Amino acid sequence: MYSTLRNVTPKAMTVASRSMTFKAPVRDVKFIFDEVLNVYKFFPESAPQDVVEMVIKEMAKFSENTLHPIYQVGDDGCKWSAERIDTPKGWKDAYKAYVDGGWPSLPADPNFGGQGFPLTVDAVKTEFCAAANWTWYMYPMLSHGAMECLTEHAVPDLKKTFLPKLVSGEWTGTMCLTEPQAGSDLGIVKSTAKPNPDGKSYKISGTKIFISCGDHDWATNIVHLVLAKLPNAPGGTKGISLFVVPKYKIKADGSLETKANCACVGIEHKMGIKGSATCVMSFEDSEGYLVGKPHNGMKEMFAFMNAARLTVGTQGLGHAELSYQNALPYARERLSGRAPTGAVCKDKVADPIIVHPDIRRLLLKLKSFTEAGRCLVYHTALVEDRVRWAKDEKEKHKLEGELGLLTPIIKAFLSETSFEVCNDGIQVYGGHGYIKEWGMEQIVRDCRISMLYEGTTGIQSMDLIGRKILMNKGKDLVTFAGSIVAFCLQNMTQVQILPHILQIQKLATEWIELAGGVMMTAQKDPSVLQSASVDFLHYSGYLVLGYMWLRMEVAALKALAAKPSDPEFYQAKLQTADFYFARMLPKTKFYAATVRAPTKVLTQMKEDHFNLRS
Amino acid sequence: MYSTLRNVTPKAMTVASRSMTFKAPVRDVKFIFDEVLNVYKFFPESAPQDVVEMVIKEMAKFSENTLHPIYQVGDDGCKWSAERIDTPKGWKDAYKAYVDGGWPSLPADPNFGGQGFPLTVDAVKTEFCAAANWTWYMYPMLSHGAMECLTEHAVPDLKKTFLPKLVSGEWTGTMCLTEPQAGSDLGIVKSTAKPNPDGKSYKISGTKIFISCGDHDWATNIVHLVLAKLPNAPGGTKGISLFVVPKYKIKADGSLETKANCACVGIEHKMGIKGSATCVMSFEDSEGYLVGKPHNGMKEMFAFMNAARLTVGTQGLGHAELSYQNALPYARERLSGRAPTGAVCKDKVADPIIVHPDIRRLLLKLKSFTEAGRCLVYHTALVEDRVRWAKDEKEKHKLEGELGLLTPIIKAFLSETSFEVCNDGIQVYGGHGYIKEWGMEQIVRDCRISMLYEGTTGIQSMDLIGRKILMNKGKDLVTFAGSIVAFCLQNMTQVQILPHILQIQKLATEWIELAGGVMMTAQKDPSVLQSASVDFLHYSGYLVLGYMWLRMEVAALKALAAKPSDPEFYQAKLQTADFYFARMLPKTKFYAATVRAPTKVLTQMKEDHFNLRS
Repeated sequence: MYSTLRNVTPKAMTVASRSMTFKAPVRDVKFIFDEVLNVYKFFPESAPQDVVEMVIKEMAKFSENTLHPIYQVGDDGCKWSAERIDTPKGWKDAYKAYVDGGWPSLPADPNFGGQGFPLTVDAVKTEFCAAANWTWYMYPMLSHGAMECLTEHAVPDLKKTFLPKLVSGEWTGTMCLTEPQAGSDLGIVKSTAKPNPDGKSYKISGTKIFISCGDHDWATNIVHLVLAKLPNAPGGTKGISLFVVPKYKIKADGSLETKANCACVGIEHKMGIKGSATCVMSFEDSEGYLVGKPHNGMKEMFAFMNAARLTVGTQGLGHAELSYQNALPYARERLSGRAPTGAVCKDKVADPIIVHPDIRRLLLKLKSFTEAGRCLVYHTALVEDRVRWAKDEKEKHKLEGELGLLTPIIKAFLSETSFEVCNDGIQVYGGHGYIKEWGMEQIVRDCRISMLYEGTTGIQSMDLIGRKILMNKGKDLVTFAGSIVAFCLQNMTQVQILPHILQIQKLATEWIELAGGVMMTAQKDPSVLQSASVDFLHYSGYLVLGYMWLRMEVAALKALAAKPSDPEFYQAKLQTADFYFARMLPKTKFYAATVRAPTKVLTQMKEDHFNLRS
Repeated sequence: MYSTLRNVTPKAMTVASRSMTFKAPVRDVKFIFDEVLNVYKFFPESAPQDVVEMVIKEMAKFSENTLHPIYQVGDDGCKWSAERIDTPKGWKDAYKAYVDGGWPSLPADPNFGGQGFPLTVDAVKTEFCAAANWTWYMYPMLSHGAMECLTEHAVPDLKKTFLPKLVSGEWTGTMCLTEPQAGSDLGIVKSTAKPNPDGKSYKISGTKIFISCGDHDWATNIVHLVLAKLPNAPGGTKGISLFVVPKYKIKADGSLETKANCACVGIEHKMGIKGSATCVMSFEDSEGYLVGKPHNGMKEMFAFMNAARLTVGTQGLGHAELSYQNALPYARERLSGRAPTGAVCKDKVADPIIVHPDIRRLLLKLKSFTEAGRCLVYHTALVEDRVRWAKDEKEKHKLEGELGLLTPIIKAFLSETSFEVCNDGIQVYGGHGYIKEWGMEQIVRDCRISMLYEGTTGIQSMDLIGRKILMNKGKDLVTFAGSIVAFCLQNMTQVQILPHILQIQKLATEWIELAGGVMMTAQKDPSVLQSASVDFLHYSGYLVLGYMWLRMEVAALKALAAKPSDPEFYQAKLQTADFYFARMLPKTKFYAATVRAPTKVLTQMKEDHFNLRS
């Protein structure tokens, strides 16, 4: 496929002539589902293994054949005019195919037309779509978040009006939070909601920015979830309410008005994800409806946000998977230099670059990150499912604690690490990686947003150390870290991986120690939370991925003991784990040191001394 | 300046309305020149302090007023047609101003019209131009490399023909190495050179790609330095020769032919540095002249490459400086959240984000990296000058060893770290950092190339551990590390910074130990060089920047003892050093562990097992 590389024919030179490849990692998902997590043990009878595997197979086909071929064209972006937004060529058709295939309804509530599949199964859809064409998937992803939010919090009338149309995919959804002056700090939003005389609806006014998929012609209506303040609302986040504002109002007979209720007044020029229009939305006395309760908007919105945060972590995984899948064939075909142990392909002018240890280092970073990230994503989705299915309150509480910890880790750590390894994907290509036609740099640009939206890495890290650890005095952390230590103890007899087990056990204990240190210091020095937060999150991420590798190693050893037909699959898992433990996990040494660093190195400098240099 | 942030006026929304700022860090350069490196002690009489400072002041003005305002427009890119390449608006005029100001000749040999300034002074020009508008500076930078190469290696006739025109800036230069199938591995280039019957010239044929600034209309002629193979040349890099191929041949009377001697047949679409046309150059029986000796091309080309490598490291520094200068005012004006120790600006809806420890962490990463990187760049430029000025062979040899070690460190470490901290610059802006109009994402895209061209990070790292350490059995490393230890011992009485001194002393010793371990292992296991190389380079980079911080701290303490008029400048240096030692230097813990990792974690996996997942 890459064998001719770039035979320069001058006139074709500047044309994107090289197509990328993508194959859904179905085998890997099966390993994680069957052998690592044993998901079917937890799934309800309505989701038996044979049906789930068929769904996964179909989703693989859709992502490979329909979504991936239109990934690169997405970089041409959207075109805005006062009348309409044009999305990239072929994207609207793909959405039609997605709807026709029944994909929007996969995890949705059967009461509103959904198929009620476990979120763990829906996470496979998300992963495959994210890897094949993340930016396209943002459209259905936002609808999914809107469904989650309305299902959980909306009053019955709103559910009845909006959910069936969202579930079928006929309408799509958005989340309208950010304003020009208010991003991470939503307490200072200025949008207002004034009650109408009808006692039911409100007039919503304000400008929202960074509204992904805020306008397009894929759906007959767009359902905006908008944060705004009621008259005389309390200050800060406690005074925010959540409203539904449809693009077109719904008449009593169910048909839509033709005049729009709000407008997209411009789109942003961005670094990447260009196929997703990032809209400036203008609401001017737009009719809207209170989703749940007054001043309860932050909480209600979080149903949307939590779903979105897990999805954004999966976005990172998807980008890294695509980068790996396109770095690997290049490394196997590009000829340059000779292996350090002597020529491997003596009949060729040079060896393929995969013989070079440093190229293998880059590939194994991608490989070890994606495989453990995948395991973490499905592990967490299963925890989320189990929270919903839990019948025992104590069990439910424990699972909720774990989910709470893992959500910011998935969002921030997978997005940060993904950006790093997708850059490694460029590096495998050398200078060619910088050239648009290969697609490797597009992945990096598309990936970069994941560390920013749905709460930056800084916000996630404060969520972890503050809300998820300090607020319950570390109880959830101790419970989860304890379950990791317990897993280590249970598997101590696996001598082949004993060094790895001991490493994880030690780090899980140090994790508690680090968190404890921060909590102790915080009593006197509140700056320590933020001073330590991002590096503590990275420490957590490396540890948790190491735990996932350990679980996969235990499963691989078990499989190998049973003499499987494909032992090399399991051997490759063990070898990839070797790499992770030797070359990635030691990052915890760095983060353990910086989490313990005194806060004054961040706080002591006077604000106007930052600038003394010119 | 940023006070209104983005007041949304719909129609202006998608227009780049926000201009970036840049102020040349003249004060910082003065500190390094006068107080840290004492450069004037080494400079010849022809470069007295008052003249040098005037040159720096003028360069500051040029970079701020002429180059920086046309940075963002550069992202519009170049337009190629068969007839011509159009460069971004205003760029050609800026080059005219650069030539009129006499800037191309600053460091050049007075025998060919140069001003003969130290390279250390020229490095200031490079830093200011790189920060103000790196992509524009690529055009003069390549000419500078061509001058270096021809001055060092060309036969007298070629020097006489080409150097005066390059020195004046009337002509520009390029470096034509890469071919579609040959990048890092130049031994497999296919371009050929056939002797003409005149006994002097050659017919050069072949296709070269990735030729920066390969064609434009800024100069009346373009001087290409082209690697090609003579008939019956030995295989590999020992059979490569270097030729000069002018775009327009020079007639006997010195006038130029009107028919081009070679052609740009296309340009690349790239992630960044779009204002610099990356050309596909086609040579078909193009007339060229042997620069120096047959089959000596690799060595001759390295005069160009070494200059370019130091410049690319400075590119990284420049991008980071620009990112810092634009992150800082945003952090001081953007309002969001409250300081952890309580509201600072009670009269405002929120505090400026610079109150947040995590935002300070991002800013201090940028600050500590740029200030130490600057010190390293000037330190190295001074070493390069001192090599040229050295009268004592032993002294010269020692300086050459240090220069050899620092060249790949500057190229690879400053480019890698710069990419990291420029991404932190985006992060300071939150979602706004992803939007083109602010310029922060353009810096990142422009910066990304620095890890690829002029030899990737992998190539630089092998140069360091292989050519610069193993080939002289570690002698140069021990000498340089020894000078760091000596500096530590000399300053042990500085109790205020004693912990930092002890850290550096310990790491400098560990540096030798790590290199020794790799050399020992390499006797049995040649894969260890590449297995360890990139992480060893990073270890080296963090250590060397730490050494620079130590030297700046010693200078700052000395200055403070003399009760200066601006003590806060020196206090800020000490505080920035505190950050570096507590929060960045511990990365060495990670790299020390991975350098020691067994090679088998990279080599054990069979090539076709990398793909077992779908």
